[in-house]
Amino acid sequence: MGLSDRIETAISRALAEAGGGPRRLTSALDYAVTPGGARIRPTILLSVARACGDDRPEVSNAAAAALEFIHCASLVHDDLPAFDDADYRRGKPSVHVAFSEPLAVLTGDSLIVLAFETLARAASDTPDRACALTLTLARQTGTPGGICAGQAWESEPRIDLSAYHRAKTGALFVAATRMGAIAAGQEPDPWDELGARIGEAFQVADDLRDAVCSSDELGKPAGQDDLHARPSAVAEFGVTGAVRHLDDILAGAIASIPSCPGEAELAGMVRAYADRIVPQAARRTVPGE
Amino acid sequence: MGLSDRIETAISRALAEAGGGPRRLTSALDYAVTPGGARIRPTILLSVARACGDDRPEVSNAAAAALEFIHCASLVHDDLPAFDDADYRRGKPSVHVAFSEPLAVLTGDSLIVLAFETLARAASDTPDRACALTLTLARQTGTPGGICAGQAWESEPRIDLSAYHRAKTGALFVAATRMGAIAAGQEPDPWDELGARIGEAFQVADDLRDAVCSSDELGKPAGQDDLHARPSAVAEFGVTGAVRHLDDILAGAIASIPSCPGEAELAGMVRAYADRIVPQAARRTVPGE
Repeated sequence: MGLSDRIETAISRALAEAGGGPRRLTSALDYAVTPGGARIRPTILLSVARACGDDRPEVSNAAAAALEFIHCASLVHDDLPAFDDADYRRGKPSVHVAFSEPLAVLTGDSLIVLAFETLARAASDTPDRACALTLTLARQTGTPGGICAGQAWESEPRIDLSAYHRAKTGALFVAATRMGAIAAGQEPDPWDELGARIGEAFQVADDLRDAVCSSDELGKPAGQDDLHARPSAVAEFGVTGAVRHLDDILAGAIASIPSCPGEAELAGMVRAYADRIVPQAARRTVPGE
Repeated sequence: MGLSDRIETAISRALAEAGGGPRRLTSALDYAVTPGGARIRPTILLSVARACGDDRPEVSNAAAAALEFIHCASLVHDDLPAFDDADYRRGKPSVHVAFSEPLAVLTGDSLIVLAFETLARAASDTPDRACALTLTLARQTGTPGGICAGQAWESEPRIDLSAYHRAKTGALFVAATRMGAIAAGQEPDPWDELGARIGEAFQVADDLRDAVCSSDELGKPAGQDDLHARPSAVAEFGVTGAVRHLDDILAGAIASIPSCPGEAELAGMVRAYADRIVPQAARRTVPGE
């Protein structure tokens, strides 16, 4: 089974376990999670698990679903009127628009809970891995270093910009690489750097898209960083410099991959990821490309 | 150390682990959790753990803190403008009033995450208990049968009233008794009925308070069930009937306590709890009391 099928199957199974309650909440959970976006985080998780031998695929599948549930929960809550007040997500009305604001809050809450439930359920015969997975996912989700903290930096009078990006964008990528290793019974620490660098690359790619893509291409207003004078890699290095910076980060990511049976395949995955996340319009501005 | 000290110490330790991030979120977490209310759920949890031998107090303490974090998270989210729009809680401004709506959403989210993190961290040398605790807490928190589902019933066109009360009020009491047993290494299923009946009693007591206490005594508007023609034990049985019904439920709760070393002490705790939750004004209306 390919990674994508493994992810969708694990997600469907976990969602089925959450069914049978109040119908609108059940529908809202399904709506928030499927059809998905690129499933980048669970794909990285399973790629790392595979590179590490993946001796318990039912554990890595559950970890992949759990990580995606946390990501989807964060999107649902971030779209709320109190945060981004975003009416659309993935080409359809956001959860609070399609259902209601109370149901959007409860959908996010339920998805966070379902993530930890999925880990505990799947890992019942390897409880040590389940505990380690729970601890890692919780740290990268909550506070002080997870995505909740990342979002909360926006409510501070003074932002620690590096902590902000590390927590808001980087945390779930670090969760992805660490959880892939843990699910396969390996030590997670050597995998931190790969996750952190992929997260950094993702942030730079996001800055590039905001600068060089049209609003139509993005499906949301473009040029926001420039308009609001936000710090961004493009503001710091220019488009050409930002593309080179991103390439450097990904080269560092590949160099950081710990020695393991699936090392070469994983490096190939990171390279393919790089090609996908850099907007073509940005590559075209770089001399010699 | 008394139960109350054990609970407050466990809560403080877990909160300290969540410190060091964005300061306003850290403050909001602390504000939402301390000073607490009666800490009824963690007290029941530790009482059951003690009745079962409590051979791993660090595990039952962590479970007690985790359960209280989920309860506090639910209060913070329930108070939001999209739900009850409550400006006050426990005699002080609610979290979204004192901080902001974004921080209230993130406080609830972070507390849910911290609950599972606390379980995983404390039970690292008994990972099987940690997994069982995680599974029980998740089921009683999420959907289909947990407090998220309970709240979501209010968004349904037709309410299943028994599922609603069981999920909204009962779920965390069932979590309390089950988690107390699991933390002490015992089978949780025999403890379900005690939790369910205490939850039922709590609901009836709440109905009684709404009917017989003044708004000043409640710290919120009284007489709401009657005003909104809500189904309640008082509407069904009258005040005297509701007090007798509550006494019957608690007698059933005591009778359901599984045979264990601390059975008598636990029965005494439930009796004391009964005296505390029934408003004096309601007892005075019952002939012969």
